[in-house]
Amino acid sequence: MNALNVAEYMQTLGLHARQASAAMARSDAATRNRALRSLAALLRGNVQALQAENATDLERAIAAGLAAPMVDRLKLTSGIIETVALGCDQLAAMPDIVGEITGLKQQPSGIRVGQMRVPIGVFGMIFESRPNVTIEAASLSIKSGNACILRGGSEAIASNKALAQLVQQALIEAGLPAQAVQLVQTIDREAVAQLIAMPQSVDLIIPRGGKGLIERISREARVPVIKHLDGNCHVYVDDPCDVEMAVQVADNAKTQKYSPCNASEGLLVANGVAGEFLPLIGMIYAAKGVEMRCDPEARAILAGVPGANLKRATEQDWYEEYLAPIISIKVVAGLEEAIAHINRYSSHHTDAIVTRDHMNAQRFLREVDSASVMVNASTRFADGFEYGLGAEIGISTDKFHARGPVGLEGLTSLKWVVLGQGEVRR
Amino acid sequence: MNALNVAEYMQTLGLHARQASAAMARSDAATRNRALRSLAALLRGNVQALQAENATDLERAIAAGLAAPMVDRLKLTSGIIETVALGCDQLAAMPDIVGEITGLKQQPSGIRVGQMRVPIGVFGMIFESRPNVTIEAASLSIKSGNACILRGGSEAIASNKALAQLVQQALIEAGLPAQAVQLVQTIDREAVAQLIAMPQSVDLIIPRGGKGLIERISREARVPVIKHLDGNCHVYVDDPCDVEMAVQVADNAKTQKYSPCNASEGLLVANGVAGEFLPLIGMIYAAKGVEMRCDPEARAILAGVPGANLKRATEQDWYEEYLAPIISIKVVAGLEEAIAHINRYSSHHTDAIVTRDHMNAQRFLREVDSASVMVNASTRFADGFEYGLGAEIGISTDKFHARGPVGLEGLTSLKWVVLGQGEVRR
Repeated sequence: MNALNVAEYMQTLGLHARQASAAMARSDAATRNRALRSLAALLRGNVQALQAENATDLERAIAAGLAAPMVDRLKLTSGIIETVALGCDQLAAMPDIVGEITGLKQQPSGIRVGQMRVPIGVFGMIFESRPNVTIEAASLSIKSGNACILRGGSEAIASNKALAQLVQQALIEAGLPAQAVQLVQTIDREAVAQLIAMPQSVDLIIPRGGKGLIERISREARVPVIKHLDGNCHVYVDDPCDVEMAVQVADNAKTQKYSPCNASEGLLVANGVAGEFLPLIGMIYAAKGVEMRCDPEARAILAGVPGANLKRATEQDWYEEYLAPIISIKVVAGLEEAIAHINRYSSHHTDAIVTRDHMNAQRFLREVDSASVMVNASTRFADGFEYGLGAEIGISTDKFHARGPVGLEGLTSLKWVVLGQGEVRR
Repeated sequence: MNALNVAEYMQTLGLHARQASAAMARSDAATRNRALRSLAALLRGNVQALQAENATDLERAIAAGLAAPMVDRLKLTSGIIETVALGCDQLAAMPDIVGEITGLKQQPSGIRVGQMRVPIGVFGMIFESRPNVTIEAASLSIKSGNACILRGGSEAIASNKALAQLVQQALIEAGLPAQAVQLVQTIDREAVAQLIAMPQSVDLIIPRGGKGLIERISREARVPVIKHLDGNCHVYVDDPCDVEMAVQVADNAKTQKYSPCNASEGLLVANGVAGEFLPLIGMIYAAKGVEMRCDPEARAILAGVPGANLKRATEQDWYEEYLAPIISIKVVAGLEEAIAHINRYSSHHTDAIVTRDHMNAQRFLREVDSASVMVNASTRFADGFEYGLGAEIGISTDKFHARGPVGLEGLTSLKWVVLGQGEVRR
């Protein structure tokens, strides 16, 4: 396809998605749940066929010299297929949120005014490598009554095509329009440029992938984008606190897994507890091979820990999302300085305080300007499933619409409904 | 000021606003309410001084040959000053919404997860002519715990400066930072270009004014914009309906006032009731001098109305926001065609059905994709005060964040709060 053809192709996808979105908005919950259960059954019934398509992606990736971890993320194991099938079943079992009316109250004029939760309409999702995202996005879209256009990574195109075909089959079986979920069938990069600039047919873009991709999409999109760029999360160990609890939380927040965006990258410690706390966490980090980038005070205290890998923190370290066994450590005077540091350097994703002081907990919750703020819990909990959303399409550090983990509600909006008996304005 | 100086000046305003926003977010409700009551008192105590400043704006406007209705909108009458003072008192008396935590539920891991309502941070407001908007925006900003930068019309600069000075005095009297509300003191247009492109210090832009201004701002802004461009609202008269009620609603929606964005511009009538309904409403429109732009069917029925000003509707008429004594009229087969017409041509602002049929009412509410959808009520009710929001900073036809009339909630966002007892992720 040349650029002109790609533009035309994307316009057609957009038009079909817009048409399908009206049918989806009209559909009832039982029908959408039937489609989800059909999809689960189709996934389970086509494990071998899916893996055959996946194999062609894997062969091409290996031939192209893709790094082993990247090849791994491409793989559609039978375990992964079962997991996404189970996800569809679970979504089907969740209560429907579309059409719910809240806050209906009578006003002095006599009219009753409330808000109805309705699908956004059409969203575009742009993602890389892992083909299971195709099913996660498709199933959330079906459950929330939206239509979507999915653009996966070029390296997974064969797997994604096979998965998308099952999705469309499930939609048809349930009596819904197949075009409610469309996969972009070309790997031409121009397709992304088109997708993010069709406000007449796409209401929202959700990018998932590298920071470069997300920055470019945010800059060029003509419609709202739900995104996060960085997860520079913090644990602040307050004075007074339960030091044993602080050690557990700071350990888990950093080391339970290094790659997720909700892993902590910075550790702040109140002066009054630093002498007791830092050697304890330092021993754990040393044992796990975590490099510690310290301000001078923290470094002086940690110097006595055998085997500790200590470096001096630079200004840049306070901004850094390592996604690796590295953590920045700073001793602060107390709550005030901790909040100021976090609001200056954090990526407004997730920040936690460990404290025994009720007033400090309240101030931290209120004044830290991040999508998730936590008291006495690991930042690793910032996740749609852990928050009880049942599913997650992404995490947002924007302040608008959806902030933090984004589930079904983030794919809907609230419109006003007014019920009258012929009232007119005086 | 030259462009460079304007850029520097706006950066400074932005920096000060960001600093003030932290103090505002920290402040308690009683303090903010005290500032609002001080402001009300200052407005009432300075009526003559305000009018003296206003007089210089008026003289300049008249000398510049501004049209009489524009000069009128500039005028700070004692009535208008009392109205905005009363608005401040009313806001002070309203419950505080900042810091409210909702939906706090325990999750299987033991953590409790909820959402806290917090100020957005800093918003920029760009408006034309009417200086009372300065007080409306400032008072909503104070109540909601935000900081704001206000950019009024150049023709009202003296009035706006005098009003903004009172706002800052009130903030200081209450112990809040004066820079929580800043007026752009230059009329240089470059200031707007800067204001909408400082994401590091401004979180949100709210433009109020002509369509051209709002389109330009939406296109060029680097931060989210809460806006509506058009109010092409509809009344659909269904079959069956209470014809007398339909006449009252269709009359009120069009003629109670022609200029507001929630006045109706299109009237759709189900075939089955057109013969009875159209002559009745036609007589009223004829008596009030409302021009009717009709499709052939409506025109045939209305031909018998004495004195009716009938024109043939063109395709363009279905899109038009007249803001004038003109209405487009179309006879449709029924609900299905009415919804399709509205979703195609309306500006997604406010649309109403008049019906006796419960199923049709439900379908209309659910399927019409507009910020406000109404049953048996005049579109003129789409308004923050009528909806019980207590105040309104604007109306949004976007689907994100704030949709429809925007009050205090639209100036806040929800962040997640997690309360634990040392839980870690397994």
